[in-house]
Amino acid sequence: MEENGGAGTTKWSISRPSAGTPLKVAGTMSIRAVLDRVFSSVDGSGPRPVLTLGSGDPTASPCFRPPPEAEDAIVEALRSGKHNGYSPTVGVLPARRAIAEYLSRDLSYQLSPDNIYLTAGCCQAIEVIISVLAQPGSNVLLPKPGFPLYESRTMFSNLEARHFNLIPDRGWEADLESLEALADENTVAMVIINPSNPCGSVYSYDHLAKIAETARKLGIIIIADEVYDHLVFGNKPFIPMGVFADIVPVITLGSISKRWLVPGWRLGWIATCDPNCVLKEAQVDKLIENYINITNDPATFIQGAVPQIIANTKEDYFNKILNLLRNSADLCYNKIKETRAITCPHKPEGSMFVMVKLDLSWLDGIQDDLDFCCRLAKEDSVIVLPGSALGMKDWIRINFATDVPTLENALERIKSFCQRHAKLQA
Amino acid sequence: MEENGGAGTTKWSISRPSAGTPLKVAGTMSIRAVLDRVFSSVDGSGPRPVLTLGSGDPTASPCFRPPPEAEDAIVEALRSGKHNGYSPTVGVLPARRAIAEYLSRDLSYQLSPDNIYLTAGCCQAIEVIISVLAQPGSNVLLPKPGFPLYESRTMFSNLEARHFNLIPDRGWEADLESLEALADENTVAMVIINPSNPCGSVYSYDHLAKIAETARKLGIIIIADEVYDHLVFGNKPFIPMGVFADIVPVITLGSISKRWLVPGWRLGWIATCDPNCVLKEAQVDKLIENYINITNDPATFIQGAVPQIIANTKEDYFNKILNLLRNSADLCYNKIKETRAITCPHKPEGSMFVMVKLDLSWLDGIQDDLDFCCRLAKEDSVIVLPGSALGMKDWIRINFATDVPTLENALERIKSFCQRHAKLQA
Ligand SMILES: Cc1ncc(COP(=O)(O)O)c(C=O)c1O
Ligand SMILES: Cc1ncc(COP(=O)(O)O)c(C=O)c1O
Repeated sequence: MEENGGAGTTKWSISRPSAGTPLKVAGTMSIRAVLDRVFSSVDGSGPRPVLTLGSGDPTASPCFRPPPEAEDAIVEALRSGKHNGYSPTVGVLPARRAIAEYLSRDLSYQLSPDNIYLTAGCCQAIEVIISVLAQPGSNVLLPKPGFPLYESRTMFSNLEARHFNLIPDRGWEADLESLEALADENTVAMVIINPSNPCGSVYSYDHLAKIAETARKLGIIIIADEVYDHLVFGNKPFIPMGVFADIVPVITLGSISKRWLVPGWRLGWIATCDPNCVLKEAQVDKLIENYINITNDPATFIQGAVPQIIANTKEDYFNKILNLLRNSADLCYNKIKETRAITCPHKPEGSMFVMVKLDLSWLDGIQDDLDFCCRLAKEDSVIVLPGSALGMKDWIRINFATDVPTLENALERIKSFCQRHAKLQA
Repeated sequence: MEENGGAGTTKWSISRPSAGTPLKVAGTMSIRAVLDRVFSSVDGSGPRPVLTLGSGDPTASPCFRPPPEAEDAIVEALRSGKHNGYSPTVGVLPARRAIAEYLSRDLSYQLSPDNIYLTAGCCQAIEVIISVLAQPGSNVLLPKPGFPLYESRTMFSNLEARHFNLIPDRGWEADLESLEALADENTVAMVIINPSNPCGSVYSYDHLAKIAETARKLGIIIIADEVYDHLVFGNKPFIPMGVFADIVPVITLGSISKRWLVPGWRLGWIATCDPNCVLKEAQVDKLIENYINITNDPATFIQGAVPQIIANTKEDYFNKILNLLRNSADLCYNKIKETRAITCPHKPEGSMFVMVKLDLSWLDGIQDDLDFCCRLAKEDSVIVLPGSALGMKDWIRINFATDVPTLENALERIKSFCQRHAKLQA
């Protein structure tokens, strides 16, 4: 029995990494991991439905459905029977061409299909780029607040992350002076996210030009996360960073997830905006290919549908979505003004998020942002994201891309939560 | 002008990894990279169409189309509008449940949905498992010949790979004596691929039991790559390694790519077969989740279709495909017998591949397997995979899963190539 017993009697040499290893830390700092924690505070026996303004996924609301043309394109690609096999690791040519043309509309030069690498969503684009940049001793400059996947991927790749601030009172512009002080000869790139998750800000031409000049001065390339491209509804137009690629090499990351409201389709891209062939000479294109060769591709029939998705989606559809977002952003901004303990320094102009500052001195017994979010989940069944998940302690991030009744209801509950917990001021 | 010139005048501190770095090496050893090299030898001006028996993708032939029920399931999931958003990182529950039930059919215990993690194809399952196992100083035992993604991912993760031989004259069984000699206290797992790519072999119950006992003796877990599960057409049934999970913890990797002929759909899984909770106690499940949290998921609507894909595909469909494969395997085996310079030590019984040994002493002026493949591509427009891509110098791998006319034509060309290059024997 001893010798033939179950597997339990053997000593198994399974790797048991210690608590602080990059994989363990990186794997628990994602937005989803933090939201799961907030979610677990919900009182399941509560009478009211849970309202979630936590994640970056508006697709639960029926008003945020993808354009029917995009669905049709998928069905057609699937039914053709031509897209069931493996794709080239860089992606199928017609999709790369369509994306090159799509991005070139906003540029004064033409991207070629060779500049485009298809990825499984913008998340995988981030994974690829961080892995390619990761060299022993290198560091990369990331915005704070930002998108935590950059932090987890840099940590996992042993690439040092250094953070520059986005300044709430300056419309969340990057603090370029402090950014310059952060950089050294081992800095390989800086990341900007525009339109911004989590800030809801949109950068002006002038600010983008300053960013480009700063990067050039430092000799570092720019990773431009434009997953929210064209999702702007304020006064400023969307200007891609690639416009400044003559000043500084730009690697643009994007996807159809946000503009087409299909985050579950997992189709994104990396675009090298490199008119002076700086990236090409440094063989960054080859490195991207090397990495892409050992990772997985987006589903082939979804790649096959990309040209039609881009060509057939009507301007009307985009306008309708922008109107919904504008309306929700206004509603959110105005409602937050009514409540003393929370403030919104900058009215959102793009993406689907707003950063809201907690004034804990107005709140009784609330420890910090995580405590705020967990108690709000428990007492009022509303989910919002703690800012500390984004590097901003005592802020929260609200996703306002949901239907108006849900949004109104959730904001009303947040207001009453704050009122219930208001500190009696002297 | 000097100061305001193009980006070319600045010194950019772009990371330029040196030639031998893991990313560079790993990224160029993939099957696709080697096949690209062979392909580039094709004489484009040649009169005959290029026939490819190189890759593991049969979908180019109209006879290897997926079941219509699977296509219908995708369309339905897409049109429902319920699967456009992000999925949980481990995958949607109904798909995990359906896969747990599907795999449990062949086991004497029940897998639960918690044992299943959805991945973007079996490729990503490999990436996840290798990343999870990779600890400084650890090593893993891999079969030779094998599937090179294991080599590239271990290299990229700085996990040491040690190779045990599969023995052609014993039906490609694993050489367990030499395997034992390879293992030491830092060995964390061994990989077996059954049915086998590239050998076309299927392991008997007895051999699998011996593998399990050996792993148990060594105290190492088994990674069972069963991406070709049920693709057997010889005398031996398919027996999943999970049958032996009471003896040794088994992590099974699989996908719908092969059996349903949809490699482009990118839907696979990791299944922990762990009735004695050895993996759970070692928190391997948590580590898998940690890694999956920072990597990307399969498209949500494809996940959403999985229960219907599994439930609705008819036995007739699978049988039809097995008949095609059996027929092609026979054809291939018999044709190879006609040619002196190439031999096939073991008739394929599963998967879609056969390993063929080159006898260079019968061939005039052919250097090695790569030379053989490149010249065959150039002179006869036939693509086969050099064995050195799989660790088997002077062998080639043929994928026989193509329509009969193409297969006959290609084999005829290979025969005439060998005859043209036959050495005049003394
Ligand atoms: C700034 C930013 N980058 C990347 C992503 C990932 O995008 P995708 O869904 O295309 O993977 C997101 C998603 O929310 C994001 O907010
Ligand atoms: C042994 C083996 N494992 C894994 C894979 C990858 O499978 P998938 O297409 O599901 O990613 C393959 C593909 O050929 C394979 O042969």
